[in-house]
Amino acid sequence: MRPSERAPDQLRAVTLETGVNRYAEGSCLIGFGHTKVLVTATVEENVPGWMRNKGAGWVTAEYGMLPRATHTRGRREAATGKQTGRTQEIQRLIGRSLRAVVDLKALGERQISLDCDVIQADGGTRTAAITGAWVALRLATNYLLEEGVLKADPILGQVAAVSCGVFKDTPVLDLDYEEDSNAEADGNFVLTGGGDIVEIQATGEKRGFTRGEFDTLFGLAEKGIGELFAFQRAAIGGK
Amino acid sequence: MRPSERAPDQLRAVTLETGVNRYAEGSCLIGFGHTKVLVTATVEENVPGWMRNKGAGWVTAEYGMLPRATHTRGRREAATGKQTGRTQEIQRLIGRSLRAVVDLKALGERQISLDCDVIQADGGTRTAAITGAWVALRLATNYLLEEGVLKADPILGQVAAVSCGVFKDTPVLDLDYEEDSNAEADGNFVLTGGGDIVEIQATGEKRGFTRGEFDTLFGLAEKGIGELFAFQRAAIGGK
Amino acid sequence: MRPSERAPDQLRAVTLETGVNRYAEGSCLIGFGHTKVLVTATVEENVPGWMRNKGAGWVTAEYGMLPRATHTRGRREAATGKQTGRTQEIQRLIGRSLRAVVDLKALGERQISLDCDVIQADGGTRTAAITGAWVALRLATNYLLEEGVLKADPILGQVAAVSCGVFKDTPVLDLDYEEDSNAEADGNFVLTGGGDIVEIQATGEKRGFTRGEFDTLFGLAEKGIGELFAFQRAAIGGK
Amino acid sequence: MRPSERAPDQLRAVTLETGVNRYAEGSCLIGFGHTKVLVTATVEENVPGWMRNKGAGWVTAEYGMLPRATHTRGRREAATGKQTGRTQEIQRLIGRSLRAVVDLKALGERQISLDCDVIQADGGTRTAAITGAWVALRLATNYLLEEGVLKADPILGQVAAVSCGVFKDTPVLDLDYEEDSNAEADGNFVLTGGGDIVEIQATGEKRGFTRGEFDTLFGLAEKGIGELFAFQRAAIGGK
Amino acid sequence: MRPSERAPDQLRAVTLETGVNRYAEGSCLIGFGHTKVLVTATVEENVPGWMRNKGAGWVTAEYGMLPRATHTRGRREAATGKQTGRTQEIQRLIGRSLRAVVDLKALGERQISLDCDVIQADGGTRTAAITGAWVALRLATNYLLEEGVLKADPILGQVAAVSCGVFKDTPVLDLDYEEDSNAEADGNFVLTGGGDIVEIQATGEKRGFTRGEFDTLFGLAEKGIGELFAFQRAAIGGK
Amino acid sequence: MRPSERAPDQLRAVTLETGVNRYAEGSCLIGFGHTKVLVTATVEENVPGWMRNKGAGWVTAEYGMLPRATHTRGRREAATGKQTGRTQEIQRLIGRSLRAVVDLKALGERQISLDCDVIQADGGTRTAAITGAWVALRLATNYLLEEGVLKADPILGQVAAVSCGVFKDTPVLDLDYEEDSNAEADGNFVLTGGGDIVEIQATGEKRGFTRGEFDTLFGLAEKGIGELFAFQRAAIGGK
Repeated sequence: MRPSERAPDQLRAVTLETGVNRYAEGSCLIGFGHTKVLVTATVEENVPGWMRNKGAGWVTAEYGMLPRATHTRGRREAATGKQTGRTQEIQRLIGRSLRAVVDLKALGERQISLDCDVIQADGGTRTAAITGAWVALRLATNYLLEEGVLKADPILGQVAAVSCGVFKDTPVLDLDYEEDSNAEADGNFVLTGGGDIVEIQATGEKRGFTRGEFDTLFGLAEKGIGELFAFQRAAIGGK
Repeated sequence: MRPSERAPDQLRAVTLETGVNRYAEGSCLIGFGHTKVLVTATVEENVPGWMRNKGAGWVTAEYGMLPRATHTRGRREAATGKQTGRTQEIQRLIGRSLRAVVDLKALGERQISLDCDVIQADGGTRTAAITGAWVALRLATNYLLEEGVLKADPILGQVAAVSCGVFKDTPVLDLDYEEDSNAEADGNFVLTGGGDIVEIQATGEKRGFTRGEFDTLFGLAEKGIGELFAFQRAAIGGK
Repeated sequence: MRPSERAPDQLRAVTLETGVNRYAEGSCLIGFGHTKVLVTATVEENVPGWMRNKGAGWVTAEYGMLPRATHTRGRREAATGKQTGRTQEIQRLIGRSLRAVVDLKALGERQISLDCDVIQADGGTRTAAITGAWVALRLATNYLLEEGVLKADPILGQVAAVSCGVFKDTPVLDLDYEEDSNAEADGNFVLTGGGDIVEIQATGEKRGFTRGEFDTLFGLAEKGIGELFAFQRAAIGGK
Repeated sequence: MRPSERAPDQLRAVTLETGVNRYAEGSCLIGFGHTKVLVTATVEENVPGWMRNKGAGWVTAEYGMLPRATHTRGRREAATGKQTGRTQEIQRLIGRSLRAVVDLKALGERQISLDCDVIQADGGTRTAAITGAWVALRLATNYLLEEGVLKADPILGQVAAVSCGVFKDTPVLDLDYEEDSNAEADGNFVLTGGGDIVEIQATGEKRGFTRGEFDTLFGLAEKGIGELFAFQRAAIGGK
Repeated sequence: MRPSERAPDQLRAVTLETGVNRYAEGSCLIGFGHTKVLVTATVEENVPGWMRNKGAGWVTAEYGMLPRATHTRGRREAATGKQTGRTQEIQRLIGRSLRAVVDLKALGERQISLDCDVIQADGGTRTAAITGAWVALRLATNYLLEEGVLKADPILGQVAAVSCGVFKDTPVLDLDYEEDSNAEADGNFVLTGGGDIVEIQATGEKRGFTRGEFDTLFGLAEKGIGELFAFQRAAIGGK
Repeated sequence: MRPSERAPDQLRAVTLETGVNRYAEGSCLIGFGHTKVLVTATVEENVPGWMRNKGAGWVTAEYGMLPRATHTRGRREAATGKQTGRTQEIQRLIGRSLRAVVDLKALGERQISLDCDVIQADGGTRTAAITGAWVALRLATNYLLEEGVLKADPILGQVAAVSCGVFKDTPVLDLDYEEDSNAEADGNFVLTGGGDIVEIQATGEKRGFTRGEFDTLFGLAEKGIGELFAFQRAAIGGK
C-alpha cells in the first residue's frame, strides 16, 4: 500500500491554473498533489551571444526552490551565492526537454525563458516543472502568433514528464516525497506527444535494479504521461 | 487623479490569506493590489553563532523577487551569484521592523526566519512584506504557544508598513509602480500598533521635498497603517 | 550629560582639509571628531552601460572602511569577497544624496565617482562621507569648469548630512560611537542648502519613538546641517 | 560506417594503467581510445560533517578537465571561479555510481575521494571516469585491507559504464567525439557486475527516439560493459 | 638624470609618523616621496586554526590600495569580489618579511595583523609597506611588553625593504612610478638589521640583465636600507 | 648528504616527452625527478581586450595542481571557487619568464597560452613548468612557422629555471620536496640562453642568509640551467 493510498499506476491530483502572472507572456501554476510549481514564460527579442546571427532562437529554463518549500528550511541560493549542482542539473534538463519540441529556426532570433519556481515541494518537482513549462511555453507562443510576431507555429508537439520508482519492491507511478526518499530505485521519464523518448534518467538508490523492473517503470511512465498530456490540452483550452 | 483612480488617502485592495504553506510554522500570501508577497515563518531551535549563550532568540528575514515578478524579466540572484544592494537593504529593514515588536529574551534561544518572496510586483513590495511578515510571525508564535514550547508570548504588539509619496505634487498613500516610478518624493513608514515609529525612510527622487510635505506623508501613513492593523487582526482570527 | 560633554545640540569638532590626494580631480579629508573619512572625486569620460547615449552624466559613490578603523579589527571586504549589506546601503545613500544636487544633463556624458574611505570610525561615518563628498565633488566640477570641459555649472546647491538620536531619553545632535551604540533611536538626515529633504532614515533601535521625538530630532538636524554648510563653504574658499 | 571504422558493437581500444601516482592510495590512467582520464583515490580518516557519528563512511568524486583536453581550449574552472553545471552533474554521477557497490558501514568512518581528471577528451569522459574510478577505489581498499585498517571488504562488486547512441540511424556502442556531436540520441549506462542497473541517462539530441531504439542501446551497453569488467579485473591483477 | 633629479643612490624623502590610529596597538603613516602607506598593527588573542595548540603565535599582513591612490582610478577589490594576484603576492611578501625577524614562540598564541593600505601610490608601495609595518609591529610589541602581556621581546631585529632598478642603463635606488614603469629591470630587496637577506625579487622588465648589474643593484639596496633602519629607529624613539 | 644522495650541484633526472596532447599546437610532459608537469601551448587568433589594435601578440600562462599531486590531497581550486595566492604568483611568474624571450610584435595579434598542470609534485614545480613551457612554446611557434602563419621567428632565445637552496648549511641545486620543506633558504632562478637574468626570487625560510651564500646559489643555478638548456634542445630535435 502506498502512503497516499493510491493505486500503483495512479497519478496524484493534477492541477493546472494558467494566467497566474499579469506580466509574463505565458504562465501557469501546476500542482502534482502537494507539489506546486509556478512557471512563467518570458519572451525576449534577442538570443545569448553564442547564438547570434544564426537565424534561430533559443529556449532556456531556470529553476529555483523557495527556502521553505520543503519540510525543513533550506538555504536561499541567492544568499549562499551559488546554485547547487542539483539546481543546475534540473534546469538543464527542463531546457533540453522543451527544446526537443521546438523548431528553433521557426522561433526566429528570440529567446523564451521558462522560470520554474517551486512554491511547495512534495517530490516530483522537476517533472511538474517540465509539464507546466510546456503549458507556459505554449501560451507564450500562442501570444506571439496572435500578435503576428510569429507567422508559423514553432511548437512541434507536446512534452511532459513523470517520475516512477520501485517502492517496497513495487513499481509505482508519480512518487511523492515519502516514497521518493525511501524508493529502492527511481527514474524520471520525459516523453513527447508522439511517444518518443526525450530523456530518461533512472537511478538505483538503495540497490541496483533489474532490466525487468526498468521496463515496468517505463510502462507506468507512458500511462502517466498520456494522462498529463490531456491535462495540458485542457489547460490551454481550444488553442 | 491617480492612475488607479484612488483617492489620495486610499490604500489599494489588501488581501491576506494565511496557511498557504503546509510545512511552515506560519505563512501568508499578502496582496497590496497587484503586488503579491508570499511569506513563510520558519522556527529553528538554534541561533546564529554570535547570539549563542545569551539566553535570547533572534528574528531575521530574507527577501527575494521571482525573476518575472516585474514587467520585464530581471536576472535571478541565485544565478548571478549575489544579492543586490537593494535586496539586502530590504531584508535588513524587514528584520529590524519585526524585532522592534519582539521580546527576544522571551523567545528563548531559537530563531524565526521570515522568507518574503515577491510573486508579483507592482510597487510597495517591502511594505507588503513587513505587513505580511508580522502575520506569519504571529501565527508561528501562536503555534509555539499552543505546543507549549513557549510559556509567554514574545510578541509585544503589531507592526505594519506603508509607502507614501508626492505624485504630481499631491501627497498620496500606498504608491503603485506607475506612481512610484514617477513620484517626486516617497517614503516608507513602519509603525507599531502603539503608534510609535519603528523606521522611516524618505527620499526625494525627482526633487528635494519640504518639511510640510513630509508631515503630510506622515499623516497619510498613520491613517493607512491603522487600516493595515485591522487587516492583520482579521487575518489571524481571534488568536 | 553626553559622554563627550557636548551640549545636546552641539556638533563635534569638524575638520575639512582639501587637496589631500595629488591625482584626484577633487579630494578632502573630513573629520567629525574622531571619525575621519578620506574622499576622492574621480572624473571619467564615460558613463555606465545603461546610461549611454542619453546625453546625461552620472554621479556615484563607493564606501569602504579600513579593517582597523574601528575598536576591534573587522574583516577586509576585499578578502572576504563581498561587500556587506551595510556597505552597499551606505554607498547607495551617498550616491543618491549627491545626485539630488546635480543636474546630470549639464554634467554631460561623464561620470564622477566619489570614493569614501573611512580611516577611523567613531560614529557618523555615512554623514561625514556625504558632507565631505559634496566638497570633493564641488572641487572636481570647479576643475572641469576651469579647464573649460564644462561650460555651465552642474551643481545645483549644497548637500550635507548629520545624525541625531535619542540618547538616555534626550534628543542629541551628531552621535559618536558611544552614544550611537546605546541610543534608543537614531536617524540620518540629508538636507539641501535650500532646506529641502533629500533623505531621512530614522530607526527605533531600543524602542519605538514618538512623532514628537522625531520632530525634535529633525530640528536638531536642521541646526547642525546649517553649520556643516558653513564648513563646506569655508573649505572650498571663495569658489 | 563509423568514422573510426569500428563495428556498431565495438568498443574503442581500452587501456588501463595502474599505480600512476606515487602518493595516492589507488590510481590509474584509463584510456577509451583517445580519451584519457587520470584517476586517483585518496583515503582520509574523517567524513563530511553531515555524515559524522553515523558509523559509516563516504565515497565521493570530483571531476575536472584540463583546459586543452579538447579540440579548442576551454576556460579553466579554477580561474572562472566556478564549476560548470556539466562538471557538477558528472561528478555527482560518478559518486553515486561508486557508492552503489560499496557497503558504507563496512568502510567505517572514513572517506575515499576519487579525483577524475581528463587529460585528453574524445567523447565518453564520464563513462571512462566511472570505469577507471572503480579500479582506483578497488586498489585503495585493497591497500586498506592489506594494512589491516579494514577487516572486511566493503566493495560489493564491480561497476562500469559506457555510452551508446543512435548515429546516422544506427545504434552504436562507445561514441567518440565525432559521433557524439552528431548523434540523434545517446545514453550513458552504468551497470553492476551482477547485471543490475545503477544509472541510465538517455537523451534525444537531434530528435526523440523510440522505445525500440532504446532497447537496442541497452543491449549494446550490456555487451560493452561486460568487456569493461574484464579489463578492470585484468588491471587489478588477481586481487 | 633621474626625473626626480635625485642622485642614483639617493632615497626619496622618507617620512614616518606614528600613532596615527587611536584604536590600533601600533600604527604609522610612512611616506617614500609621494607614496603614502597607512599601517596598523592589531593584536588578537588567538591564532588561525592551523596554528592552534602549537605554543606559537603568528604574524600576518593584508595589503590594499584605495581606488584613487593611482593616476587613474582602479577598481575597488571589495566591489569586484576578489583580490588581484598582485595584491596577494604583496601581502604574502610582507608577512614573510616580518616573520623573518619575529620569534613566534616568544610571541605566544596570539596573532598580530599588519594592515597596509596605500593612500597614495608613486612606486615602491610594497617596500614602504614592509618598512612601515616593522614600525607598527615594533610599537604593538612594545605595548604588549609594557602591559606585561609579554615577558620577553619576540622581535629579533629590524627589517626594511627598498626597490632598485636599471633605468636608462643606470642602476638607481628607490624607483618612483615614472622610473618603475620605464625601467629595464628592477628588484625588491628585503634585508635584516644584521645584514642578512630575507627576500630578493628581481625581474628583467624590458630586457634580461646581467649578473654585474644585479650586483650593483644589491649594493644600492644595502646602502638605502641602512638609511631606512635609521628612520625606523628615530620613529620609535628610544624604545 | 642529500636525502636523494645527489651531489650538491646535481640535477634530478630530467625527462622531456613532447607531443603528448593530440590537439595542442605544442605540448610536453616534463619531469624533474618525481615532479611531473604537463604543459600544452594553445594558439588563439586574438588577444586580450587591453592588447587589441597594438600590432602585437601576447604570451600567458595558467598553472594548476591536481588535488592528489601531493602527499596529502589538497582542495580542488575549481571547487573552492578561487585560485590561491600561490597559484596566481606562479602563473604570473611563468608568463613573465616566457615573454622575456618572445618578440611580441613578431608574434602578431595572436595569443599563446601555456597551461601547466602538475600531475605529481615533489618540489620545483614552478621551475619545471617554466622549463617545459618554453619547449611547448617553441613547438607551437615552429608549427606556426611551418604553416606559414608566421614569416619570422618570434622566439628570441631559450629560457629555463631551477631552484637552489641552503639545506643543512650546504648550498644545493634543484631541491626536492624533502629538501625544500627543510631548507634554511631557497631561491628560484630564471635565466636566458644568453646568460641574462630574467627573474630571481630568493627567500630566507628558516633564517636570513648571507650575500656569500646567495652568490653560491647563483653559481649553482647557472650550472643547472645550462644543463636544462641542453635537455630543451634535445627535446625539440633539430628544429
